[in-house]
Amino acid sequence: MRTIELQENERIDDLITSGRKIIQNEQEFCFSLDAVLLAHFPKLYPTQRVLDLGTGTGVIPLLIADKAAHIDAVELNPVMAGIAARNVVLNKLAEKITVKEGDYRQIRSLYAAECFDLVLANPPYRPVHHGQENTLAGVARARHEFTATLADVIRAARYALKYHGRFAMVHLPERLGEIMVEMHANRIEAKRLQFVQPKADKEPNMLLIEGIAGGNPGGLKVLPPLVVHEPDGGYTQDVLEYYKV
Amino acid sequence: MRTIELQENERIDDLITSGRKIIQNEQEFCFSLDAVLLAHFPKLYPTQRVLDLGTGTGVIPLLIADKAAHIDAVELNPVMAGIAARNVVLNKLAEKITVKEGDYRQIRSLYAAECFDLVLANPPYRPVHHGQENTLAGVARARHEFTATLADVIRAARYALKYHGRFAMVHLPERLGEIMVEMHANRIEAKRLQFVQPKADKEPNMLLIEGIAGGNPGGLKVLPPLVVHEPDGGYTQDVLEYYKV
Repeated sequence: MRTIELQENERIDDLITSGRKIIQNEQEFCFSLDAVLLAHFPKLYPTQRVLDLGTGTGVIPLLIADKAAHIDAVELNPVMAGIAARNVVLNKLAEKITVKEGDYRQIRSLYAAECFDLVLANPPYRPVHHGQENTLAGVARARHEFTATLADVIRAARYALKYHGRFAMVHLPERLGEIMVEMHANRIEAKRLQFVQPKADKEPNMLLIEGIAGGNPGGLKVLPPLVVHEPDGGYTQDVLEYYKV
Repeated sequence: MRTIELQENERIDDLITSGRKIIQNEQEFCFSLDAVLLAHFPKLYPTQRVLDLGTGTGVIPLLIADKAAHIDAVELNPVMAGIAARNVVLNKLAEKITVKEGDYRQIRSLYAAECFDLVLANPPYRPVHHGQENTLAGVARARHEFTATLADVIRAARYALKYHGRFAMVHLPERLGEIMVEMHANRIEAKRLQFVQPKADKEPNMLLIEGIAGGNPGGLKVLPPLVVHEPDGGYTQDVLEYYKV
Protein backbone atom coordinates (compact mmCIF):
# COMPACT_ATOMS: atom_id res chain seq x y z
CA MET A 1 0.00 0.00 0.00
CA ARG A 2 1.21 3.47 -0.86
CA THR A 3 1.83 5.96 1.89
CA ILE A 4 -0.64 8.83 1.94
CA GLU A 5 0.88 11.99 3.32
CA LEU A 6 -1.38 14.38 5.16
CA GLN A 7 -0.58 18.06 4.73
CA GLU A 8 -1.18 20.91 7.17
CA ASN A 9 -4.83 21.29 8.26
CA GLU A 10 -5.77 17.96 6.72
CA ARG A 11 -7.53 15.14 8.50
CA ILE A 12 -8.83 11.73 7.45
CA ASP A 13 -12.52 11.08 8.12
CA ASP A 14 -14.58 7.94 7.75
CA LEU A 15 -16.89 8.00 4.79
CA ILE A 16 -19.21 5.80 6.76
CA THR A 17 -21.43 4.75 3.92
CA SER A 18 -19.00 2.46 2.11
CA GLY A 19 -16.27 1.80 4.64
CA ARG A 20 -14.15 4.32 2.73
CA LYS A 21 -12.04 7.08 4.16
CA ILE A 22 -11.69 10.67 3.01
CA ILE A 23 -9.04 13.33 3.49
CA GLN A 24 -10.48 16.79 4.11
CA ASN A 25 -8.75 20.11 4.76
CA GLU A 26 -10.30 22.13 7.55
CA GLN A 27 -9.43 25.41 5.80
CA GLU A 28 -11.24 24.34 2.64
CA PHE A 29 -14.79 23.27 1.85
CA CYS A 30 -15.67 20.02 3.62
CA PHE A 31 -18.36 17.73 2.20
CA SER A 32 -21.72 17.77 3.84
CA LEU A 33 -25.14 16.20 3.63
CA ASP A 34 -25.71 17.81 0.21
CA ALA A 35 -23.13 15.57 -1.43
CA VAL A 36 -24.42 12.46 0.30
CA LEU A 37 -28.00 13.15 -0.81
CA LEU A 38 -26.93 13.87 -4.39
CA ALA A 39 -24.88 10.67 -4.54
CA HIS A 40 -28.03 8.71 -3.66
CA PHE A 41 -30.53 10.59 -5.84
CA PRO A 42 -30.08 9.30 -9.41
CA LYS A 43 -30.38 5.63 -10.21
CA LEU A 44 -26.89 4.28 -10.92
CA TYR A 45 -25.97 1.54 -13.38
CA PRO A 46 -22.75 -0.49 -13.27
CA THR A 47 -22.30 -0.04 -17.02
CA GLN A 48 -22.45 3.75 -17.04
CA ARG A 49 -19.80 6.46 -17.23
CA VAL A 50 -20.25 9.31 -14.79
CA LEU A 51 -18.78 12.82 -14.63
CA ASP A 52 -18.70 14.84 -11.39
CA LEU A 53 -18.43 18.59 -12.06
CA GLY A 54 -16.62 20.40 -9.23
CA THR A 55 -15.82 17.30 -7.22
CA GLY A 56 -14.17 19.03 -4.24
CA THR A 57 -12.50 16.32 -2.17
CA GLY A 58 -14.00 13.69 -4.46
CA VAL A 59 -16.66 12.63 -2.00
CA ILE A 60 -19.31 11.84 -4.62
CA PRO A 61 -17.06 9.59 -6.74
CA LEU A 62 -15.99 7.77 -3.55
CA LEU A 63 -19.62 7.21 -2.56
CA ILE A 64 -20.77 5.87 -5.92
CA ALA A 65 -17.62 4.05 -7.04
CA ASP A 66 -19.15 0.59 -6.65
CA LYS A 67 -22.21 1.46 -8.71
CA ALA A 68 -20.69 2.92 -11.89
CA ALA A 69 -18.39 1.72 -14.66
CA HIS A 70 -16.05 4.70 -14.37
CA ILE A 71 -16.15 8.15 -12.82
CA ASP A 72 -14.36 11.23 -14.08
CA ALA A 73 -14.11 14.13 -11.67
CA VAL A 74 -12.96 17.69 -12.32
CA GLU A 75 -12.02 20.34 -9.75
CA LEU A 76 -10.83 23.90 -10.27
CA ASN A 77 -9.21 24.47 -6.89
CA PRO A 78 -5.72 22.88 -7.06
CA VAL A 79 -5.64 22.18 -3.31
CA MET A 80 -8.94 20.32 -3.52
CA ALA A 81 -8.03 18.53 -6.75
CA GLY A 82 -4.88 17.32 -4.99
CA ILE A 83 -6.88 16.03 -2.05
CA ALA A 84 -9.37 14.33 -4.38
CA ALA A 85 -6.53 12.57 -6.21
CA ARG A 86 -5.05 11.37 -2.91
CA ASN A 87 -8.50 10.21 -1.74
CA VAL A 88 -8.71 7.99 -4.82
CA VAL A 89 -5.36 6.42 -3.98
CA LEU A 90 -6.23 6.14 -0.28
CA ASN A 91 -9.30 4.10 -1.22
CA LYS A 92 -7.52 2.11 -3.95
CA LEU A 93 -9.87 3.35 -6.63
CA ALA A 94 -7.38 4.51 -9.26
CA GLU A 95 -8.91 2.12 -11.81
CA LYS A 96 -12.37 3.50 -11.21
CA ILE A 97 -11.98 7.25 -10.63
CA THR A 98 -9.96 9.76 -12.67
CA VAL A 99 -9.50 13.19 -11.09
CA LYS A 100 -8.52 16.14 -13.27
CA GLU A 101 -7.62 19.65 -12.13
CA GLY A 102 -9.42 21.99 -14.49
CA ASP A 103 -12.13 24.56 -15.14
CA TYR A 104 -15.38 23.11 -16.41
CA ARG A 105 -16.22 26.41 -18.05
CA GLN A 106 -13.61 25.23 -20.57
CA ILE A 107 -14.96 21.69 -20.65
CA ARG A 108 -14.17 21.31 -24.36
CA SER A 109 -10.50 21.27 -23.47
CA LEU A 110 -11.03 18.63 -20.77
CA TYR A 111 -13.37 15.93 -22.16
CA ALA A 112 -14.75 14.75 -25.49
CA ALA A 113 -18.36 15.76 -26.19
CA GLU A 114 -21.32 13.51 -25.36
CA CYS A 115 -19.35 10.76 -23.65
CA PHE A 116 -21.13 10.48 -20.29
CA ASP A 117 -24.32 8.70 -19.24
CA LEU A 118 -24.69 10.75 -16.08
CA VAL A 119 -23.32 14.12 -15.00
CA LEU A 120 -23.49 15.13 -11.33
CA ALA A 121 -23.05 18.60 -9.84
CA ASN A 122 -23.04 20.04 -6.35
CA PRO A 123 -22.23 23.56 -7.56
CA PRO A 124 -21.85 26.89 -5.76
CA TYR A 125 -25.35 27.80 -4.60
CA ARG A 126 -25.41 31.55 -4.33
CA PRO A 127 -24.92 34.33 -6.87
CA VAL A 128 -21.98 36.60 -6.07
CA HIS A 129 -23.02 39.49 -3.78
CA HIS A 130 -25.83 37.47 -2.22
CA GLY A 131 -25.44 36.11 1.27
CA GLN A 132 -22.40 36.46 3.44
CA GLU A 133 -19.26 35.43 1.63
CA ASN A 134 -16.98 33.12 3.50
CA THR A 135 -13.65 34.69 4.34
CA LEU A 136 -11.68 31.67 3.17
CA ALA A 137 -11.17 32.05 -0.55
CA GLY A 138 -11.58 28.34 -1.38
CA VAL A 139 -14.76 28.03 0.66
CA ALA A 140 -16.18 31.17 -0.95
CA ARG A 141 -15.58 29.70 -4.40
CA ALA A 142 -17.33 26.50 -3.40
CA ARG A 143 -20.38 28.36 -2.06
CA HIS A 144 -20.69 31.41 -4.34
CA GLU A 145 -20.67 31.68 -8.10
CA PHE A 146 -17.28 33.38 -8.36
CA THR A 147 -15.91 30.81 -10.75
CA ALA A 148 -18.99 29.10 -12.16
CA THR A 149 -22.61 30.16 -12.49
CA LEU A 150 -25.69 27.99 -12.76
CA ALA A 151 -25.57 28.55 -16.52
CA ASP A 152 -21.92 27.42 -16.63
CA VAL A 153 -22.56 24.14 -14.85
CA ILE A 154 -25.62 23.27 -16.93
CA ARG A 155 -23.85 24.15 -20.19
CA ALA A 156 -20.92 21.94 -19.18
CA ALA A 157 -23.31 19.09 -18.37
CA ARG A 158 -25.05 19.38 -21.71
CA TYR A 159 -21.72 19.24 -23.56
CA ALA A 160 -20.60 16.14 -21.66
CA LEU A 161 -23.88 14.20 -21.80
CA LYS A 162 -24.78 11.58 -24.37
CA TYR A 163 -28.18 11.98 -26.04
CA HIS A 164 -30.72 10.96 -23.38
CA GLY A 165 -28.02 10.96 -20.72
CA ARG A 166 -29.00 12.25 -17.28
CA PHE A 167 -27.97 15.31 -15.30
CA ALA A 168 -28.47 15.39 -11.51
CA MET A 169 -27.80 18.34 -9.23
CA VAL A 170 -28.32 19.50 -5.66
CA HIS A 171 -29.17 23.18 -5.24
CA LEU A 172 -31.30 25.70 -3.34
CA PRO A 173 -35.12 25.74 -3.63
CA GLU A 174 -35.05 29.52 -4.08
CA ARG A 175 -33.26 29.05 -7.41
CA LEU A 176 -35.58 26.43 -8.90
CA GLY A 177 -37.02 28.83 -11.49
CA GLU A 178 -33.57 29.72 -12.82
CA ILE A 179 -32.57 26.04 -12.81
CA MET A 180 -35.62 25.05 -14.86
CA VAL A 181 -35.05 27.87 -17.33
CA GLU A 182 -31.34 27.10 -17.79
CA MET A 183 -31.92 23.39 -18.12
CA HIS A 184 -34.58 23.97 -20.77
CA ALA A 185 -32.33 26.45 -22.59
CA ASN A 186 -29.72 23.69 -22.76
CA ARG A 187 -32.28 21.08 -23.84
CA ILE A 188 -32.08 19.17 -20.57
CA GLU A 189 -35.66 18.55 -19.44
CA ALA A 190 -36.37 18.09 -15.73
CA LYS A 191 -37.83 14.64 -15.01
CA ARG A 192 -37.40 14.12 -11.24
CA LEU A 193 -37.52 16.63 -8.41
CA GLN A 194 -37.31 16.19 -4.66
CA PHE A 195 -37.19 18.82 -1.97
CA VAL A 196 -35.21 18.24 1.21
CA GLN A 197 -36.80 19.59 4.40
CA PRO A 198 -34.84 19.88 7.68
CA LYS A 199 -38.02 18.75 9.49
CA ALA A 200 -41.48 17.61 8.37
CA ASP A 201 -43.09 20.99 9.05
CA LYS A 202 -40.22 23.19 7.80
CA GLU A 203 -39.70 24.73 4.39
CA PRO A 204 -37.22 22.87 2.19
CA ASN A 205 -33.61 24.10 2.23
CA MET A 206 -32.29 21.93 -0.59
CA LEU A 207 -33.58 20.41 -3.80
CA LEU A 208 -32.46 17.45 -5.84
CA ILE A 209 -33.22 17.56 -9.56
CA GLU A 210 -32.62 15.18 -12.43
CA GLY A 211 -33.09 15.90 -16.13
CA ILE A 212 -32.64 14.13 -19.44
CA ALA A 213 -30.57 15.59 -22.28
CA GLY A 214 -32.76 15.89 -25.35
CA GLY A 215 -35.87 14.83 -23.41
CA ASN A 216 -39.33 16.21 -24.13
CA PRO A 217 -40.77 18.93 -21.89
CA GLY A 218 -43.33 17.76 -19.32
CA GLY A 219 -43.55 14.50 -17.43
CA LEU A 220 -41.74 15.81 -14.33
CA LYS A 221 -42.08 13.44 -11.39
CA VAL A 222 -42.13 15.29 -8.06
CA LEU A 223 -41.31 12.99 -5.15
CA PRO A 224 -42.61 13.47 -1.61
CA PRO A 225 -40.10 15.61 0.30
CA LEU A 226 -37.08 13.99 1.95
CA VAL A 227 -37.19 14.92 5.64
CA VAL A 228 -33.77 14.97 7.32
CA HIS A 229 -34.51 15.20 11.04
CA GLU A 230 -37.11 13.69 13.33
CA PRO A 231 -38.90 16.14 15.64
CA ASP A 232 -36.39 15.13 18.38
CA GLY A 233 -33.44 16.16 16.17
CA GLY A 234 -32.15 12.71 15.21
CA TYR A 235 -31.83 11.66 11.59
CA THR A 236 -34.89 10.12 9.94
CA GLN A 237 -34.78 6.54 8.70
CA ASP A 238 -34.61 7.79 5.08
CA VAL A 239 -31.35 9.61 5.78
CA LEU A 240 -29.89 6.90 8.01
CA GLU A 241 -30.27 4.50 5.05
CA TYR A 242 -27.68 6.58 3.20
CA TYR A 243 -25.12 6.06 5.93
CA LYS A 244 -25.41 2.31 6.09
CA VAL A 245 -22.15 0.44 5.62
CA MET B 1 -84.64 39.48 -4.74
CA ARG B 2 -84.50 38.39 -8.37
CA THR B 3 -85.68 34.94 -9.29
CA ILE B 4 -82.88 32.63 -10.38
CA GLU B 5 -84.04 30.06 -12.88
CA LEU B 6 -82.32 26.71 -12.93
CA GLN B 7 -81.97 25.10 -16.32
CA GLU B 8 -81.84 21.41 -17.20
CA ASN B 9 -79.07 19.47 -15.41
CA GLU B 10 -78.34 22.37 -13.09
CA ARG B 11 -78.28 22.20 -9.33
CA ILE B 12 -77.51 24.69 -6.56
CA ASP B 13 -74.75 23.67 -4.14
CA ASP B 14 -73.57 25.31 -0.94
CA LEU B 15 -70.24 27.03 -1.31
CA ILE B 16 -69.63 26.21 2.30
CA THR B 17 -66.71 28.50 2.84
CA SER B 18 -68.57 31.80 2.76
CA GLY B 19 -72.20 30.88 3.18
CA ARG B 20 -72.59 31.42 -0.56
CA LYS B 21 -74.39 29.21 -3.02
CA ILE B 22 -73.34 28.11 -6.47
CA ILE B 23 -75.21 26.81 -9.49
CA GLN B 24 -73.42 23.97 -11.27
CA ASN B 25 -74.40 21.93 -14.31
CA GLU B 26 -73.83 18.22 -13.98
CA GLN B 27 -73.04 17.90 -17.69
CA GLU B 28 -70.31 20.55 -17.49
CA PHE B 29 -67.14 20.94 -15.44
CA CYS B 30 -67.95 21.25 -11.72
CA PHE B 31 -65.56 23.04 -9.40
CA SER B 32 -63.36 20.93 -7.20
CA LEU B 33 -60.66 21.20 -4.56
CA ASP B 34 -58.27 22.81 -7.09
CA ALA B 35 -60.33 25.99 -7.21
CA VAL B 36 -60.72 26.14 -3.43
CA LEU B 37 -56.96 25.76 -2.89
CA LEU B 38 -56.13 28.39 -5.51
CA ALA B 39 -58.61 30.84 -4.00
CA HIS B 40 -56.74 30.54 -0.69
CA PHE B 41 -53.17 30.56 -2.02
CA PRO B 42 -52.29 34.20 -2.81
CA LYS B 43 -52.54 36.88 -0.18
CA LEU B 44 -55.57 39.05 -0.99
CA TYR B 45 -55.92 42.77 -0.37
CA PRO B 46 -59.25 44.64 -0.16
CA THR B 47 -57.87 47.42 -2.38
CA GLN B 48 -56.82 45.18 -5.27
CA ARG B 49 -58.39 44.39 -8.63
CA VAL B 50 -58.42 40.72 -9.56
CA LEU B 51 -58.92 38.90 -12.87
CA ASP B 52 -59.93 35.23 -13.04
CA LEU B 53 -58.99 33.63 -16.38
CA GLY B 54 -61.38 30.82 -17.32
CA THR B 55 -63.69 31.25 -14.37
CA GLY B 56 -66.01 28.29 -15.11
CA THR B 57 -69.02 28.65 -12.82
CA GLY B 58 -67.34 31.62 -11.12
CA VAL B 59 -66.38 29.67 -8.03
CA ILE B 60 -63.11 31.55 -7.41
CA PRO B 61 -64.66 35.03 -7.61
CA LEU B 62 -67.42 33.88 -5.24
CA LEU B 63 -64.86 32.55 -2.75
CA ILE B 64 -62.69 35.69 -2.70
CA ALA B 65 -65.36 38.36 -3.19
CA ASP B 66 -65.02 39.70 0.37
CA LYS B 67 -61.25 40.08 0.12
CA ALA B 68 -60.81 42.06 -3.10
CA ALA B 69 -61.88 45.46 -4.42
CA HIS B 70 -63.31 44.06 -7.64
CA ILE B 71 -63.10 40.83 -9.59
CA ASP B 72 -63.36 40.44 -13.35
CA ALA B 73 -63.94 36.94 -14.64
CA VAL B 74 -63.81 35.66 -18.20
CA GLU B 75 -65.13 32.36 -19.54
CA LEU B 76 -65.07 30.97 -23.09
CA ASN B 77 -67.85 28.39 -22.73
CA PRO B 78 -71.17 30.27 -23.09
CA VAL B 79 -73.06 27.77 -20.92
CA MET B 80 -70.54 28.23 -18.11
CA ALA B 81 -70.34 32.00 -18.55
CA GLY B 82 -74.15 32.09 -18.22
CA ILE B 83 -74.00 30.06 -15.02
CA ALA B 84 -71.22 32.28 -13.62
CA ALA B 85 -73.31 35.39 -14.34
CA ARG B 86 -76.32 33.87 -12.57
CA ASN B 87 -74.13 32.82 -9.64
CA VAL B 88 -73.12 36.45 -9.19
CA VAL B 89 -76.76 37.50 -9.06
CA LEU B 90 -77.71 34.59 -6.81
CA ASN B 91 -75.12 35.78 -4.29
CA LYS B 92 -75.94 39.50 -4.74
CA LEU B 93 -72.41 40.29 -5.86
CA ALA B 94 -73.13 42.24 -9.05
CA GLU B 95 -71.25 45.26 -7.64
CA LYS B 96 -68.19 43.16 -6.93
CA ILE B 97 -67.88 40.63 -9.76
CA THR B 98 -68.15 41.23 -13.52
CA VAL B 99 -68.42 38.13 -15.69
CA LYS B 100 -67.62 38.35 -19.39
CA GLU B 101 -68.06 35.65 -22.01
CA GLY B 102 -64.91 35.70 -24.11
CA ASP B 103 -61.67 34.06 -25.20
CA TYR B 104 -58.62 35.11 -23.19
CA ARG B 105 -56.39 34.28 -26.14
CA GLN B 106 -57.81 37.54 -27.49
CA ILE B 107 -57.46 39.35 -24.17
CA ARG B 108 -56.59 42.65 -25.88
CA SER B 109 -60.17 42.86 -27.08
CA LEU B 110 -61.53 42.15 -23.58
CA TYR B 111 -59.54 44.25 -21.06
CA ALA B 112 -57.15 47.20 -21.00
CA ALA B 113 -53.48 46.30 -20.51
CA GLU B 114 -51.82 46.25 -17.08
CA CYS B 115 -54.93 46.98 -15.05
CA PHE B 116 -54.95 44.11 -12.56
CA ASP B 117 -53.08 43.57 -9.29
CA LEU B 118 -53.65 39.83 -9.29
CA VAL B 119 -54.50 37.35 -12.05
CA LEU B 120 -55.75 33.87 -11.12
CA ALA B 121 -55.96 30.81 -13.36
CA ASN B 122 -57.18 27.24 -12.92
CA PRO B 123 -56.51 26.35 -16.56
CA PRO B 124 -56.84 23.09 -18.52
CA TYR B 125 -54.11 20.83 -17.16
CA ARG B 126 -53.27 18.41 -19.95
CA PRO B 127 -51.91 18.91 -23.45
CA VAL B 128 -54.24 17.67 -26.16
CA HIS B 129 -53.68 13.97 -26.93
CA HIS B 130 -52.43 13.25 -23.41
CA GLY B 131 -54.63 11.36 -21.00
CA GLN B 132 -58.14 10.21 -21.68
CA GLU B 133 -60.30 12.97 -23.07
CA ASN B 134 -63.65 13.39 -21.44
CA THR B 135 -66.53 12.63 -23.75
CA LEU B 136 -68.45 15.77 -22.77
CA ALA B 137 -67.13 18.57 -24.94
CA GLY B 138 -67.28 21.27 -22.25
CA VAL B 139 -65.51 19.10 -19.70
CA ALA B 140 -62.82 18.19 -22.23
CA ARG B 141 -62.17 21.87 -22.90
CA ALA B 142 -61.87 22.55 -19.18
CA ARG B 143 -59.37 19.69 -18.68
CA HIS B 144 -57.39 19.63 -21.93
CA GLU B 145 -55.68 22.40 -23.83
CA PHE B 146 -58.09 22.45 -26.76
CA THR B 147 -58.83 26.11 -26.43
CA ALA B 148 -55.95 27.50 -24.36
CA THR B 149 -52.42 26.25 -23.74
CA LEU B 150 -50.16 26.99 -20.81
CA ALA B 151 -48.47 29.63 -22.98
CA ASP B 152 -51.84 31.24 -23.77
CA VAL B 153 -52.86 31.59 -20.13
CA ILE B 154 -49.49 33.00 -19.02
CA ARG B 155 -49.38 35.45 -21.94
CA ALA B 156 -52.89 36.64 -21.06
CA ALA B 157 -51.85 37.09 -17.43
CA ARG B 158 -48.81 39.12 -18.37
CA TYR B 159 -50.91 41.42 -20.57
CA ALA B 160 -53.44 42.00 -17.81
CA LEU B 161 -51.01 42.47 -14.90
CA LYS B 162 -49.72 45.77 -13.61
CA TYR B 163 -45.95 46.02 -13.16
CA HIS B 164 -45.16 43.94 -10.06
CA GLY B 165 -48.67 42.51 -10.07
CA ARG B 166 -49.03 38.87 -9.10
CA PHE B 167 -50.07 35.79 -11.06
CA ALA B 168 -51.30 32.68 -9.21
CA MET B 169 -52.19 29.36 -10.79
CA VAL B 170 -53.05 25.78 -9.86
CA HIS B 171 -51.62 23.10 -12.15
CA LEU B 172 -50.02 19.65 -12.33
CA PRO B 173 -46.57 18.94 -10.80
CA GLU B 174 -45.54 17.11 -13.98
CA ARG B 175 -45.72 20.40 -15.88
CA LEU B 176 -43.68 22.54 -13.48
CA GLY B 177 -40.73 22.82 -15.88
CA GLU B 178 -42.91 24.16 -18.69
CA ILE B 179 -44.66 26.52 -16.26
CA MET B 180 -41.35 27.97 -15.06
CA VAL B 181 -40.08 28.39 -18.61
CA GLU B 182 -43.27 30.07 -19.86
CA MET B 183 -43.50 32.36 -16.85
CA HIS B 184 -39.88 33.44 -17.31
CA ALA B 185 -40.43 33.95 -21.07
CA ASN B 186 -43.28 36.32 -20.14
CA ARG B 187 -41.20 38.06 -17.46
CA ILE B 188 -43.28 36.67 -14.60
CA GLU B 189 -40.83 35.29 -12.03
CA ALA B 190 -41.96 32.52 -9.71
CA LYS B 191 -41.84 33.61 -6.04
CA ARG B 192 -44.01 31.08 -4.15
CA LEU B 193 -44.56 27.40 -4.78
CA GLN B 194 -46.50 24.79 -2.85
CA PHE B 195 -47.18 21.19 -3.76
CA VAL B 196 -50.42 19.52 -2.76
CA GLN B 197 -50.14 15.88 -1.68
CA PRO B 198 -53.20 13.62 -1.31
CA LYS B 199 -51.52 12.11 1.79
CA ALA B 200 -48.31 12.82 3.70
CA ASP B 201 -46.41 9.95 2.08
CA LYS B 202 -47.83 10.34 -1.46
CA GLU B 203 -46.39 12.21 -4.41
CA PRO B 204 -48.03 15.59 -5.04
CA ASN B 205 -50.86 15.69 -7.57
CA MET B 206 -51.28 19.47 -7.73
CA LEU B 207 -49.10 22.55 -7.41
CA LEU B 208 -49.86 26.13 -6.50
CA ILE B 209 -47.54 28.76 -7.92
CA GLU B 210 -47.36 32.54 -7.62
CA GLY B 211 -45.14 34.87 -9.62
CA ILE B 212 -44.49 38.58 -9.94
CA ALA B 213 -44.67 40.44 -13.25
CA GLY B 214 -41.34 42.13 -13.89
CA GLY B 215 -39.76 40.50 -10.81
CA ASN B 216 -36.13 39.43 -10.67
CA PRO B 217 -35.24 35.77 -11.14
CA GLY B 218 -34.44 33.85 -7.96
CA GLY B 219 -35.87 34.20 -4.49
CA LEU B 220 -38.48 31.47 -4.93
CA LYS B 221 -40.06 30.48 -1.61
CA VAL B 222 -41.05 26.81 -1.54
CA LEU B 223 -43.59 26.08 1.19
CA PRO B 224 -43.92 22.74 2.96
CA PRO B 225 -46.43 20.61 1.04
CA LEU B 226 -50.15 20.97 1.72
CA VAL B 227 -51.46 17.54 2.68
CA VAL B 228 -55.15 17.01 1.88
CA HIS B 229 -56.08 13.79 3.68
CA GLU B 230 -55.21 12.27 7.02
CA PRO B 231 -54.10 8.62 6.95
CA ASP B 232 -57.71 7.66 7.84
CA GLY B 233 -59.05 9.50 4.76
CA GLY B 234 -60.56 12.56 6.45
CA TYR B 235 -59.50 16.07 5.51
CA THR B 236 -56.49 17.53 7.31
CA GLN B 237 -56.89 20.59 9.50
CA ASP B 238 -55.13 22.72 6.83
CA VAL B 239 -57.83 21.89 4.30
CA LEU B 240 -60.72 22.08 6.76
CA GLU B 241 -59.66 25.67 7.48
CA TYR B 242 -60.56 26.52 3.89
CA TYR B 243 -64.12 25.30 4.35
CA LYS B 244 -64.83 27.28 7.48
CA VAL B 245 -67.87 29.52 7.26
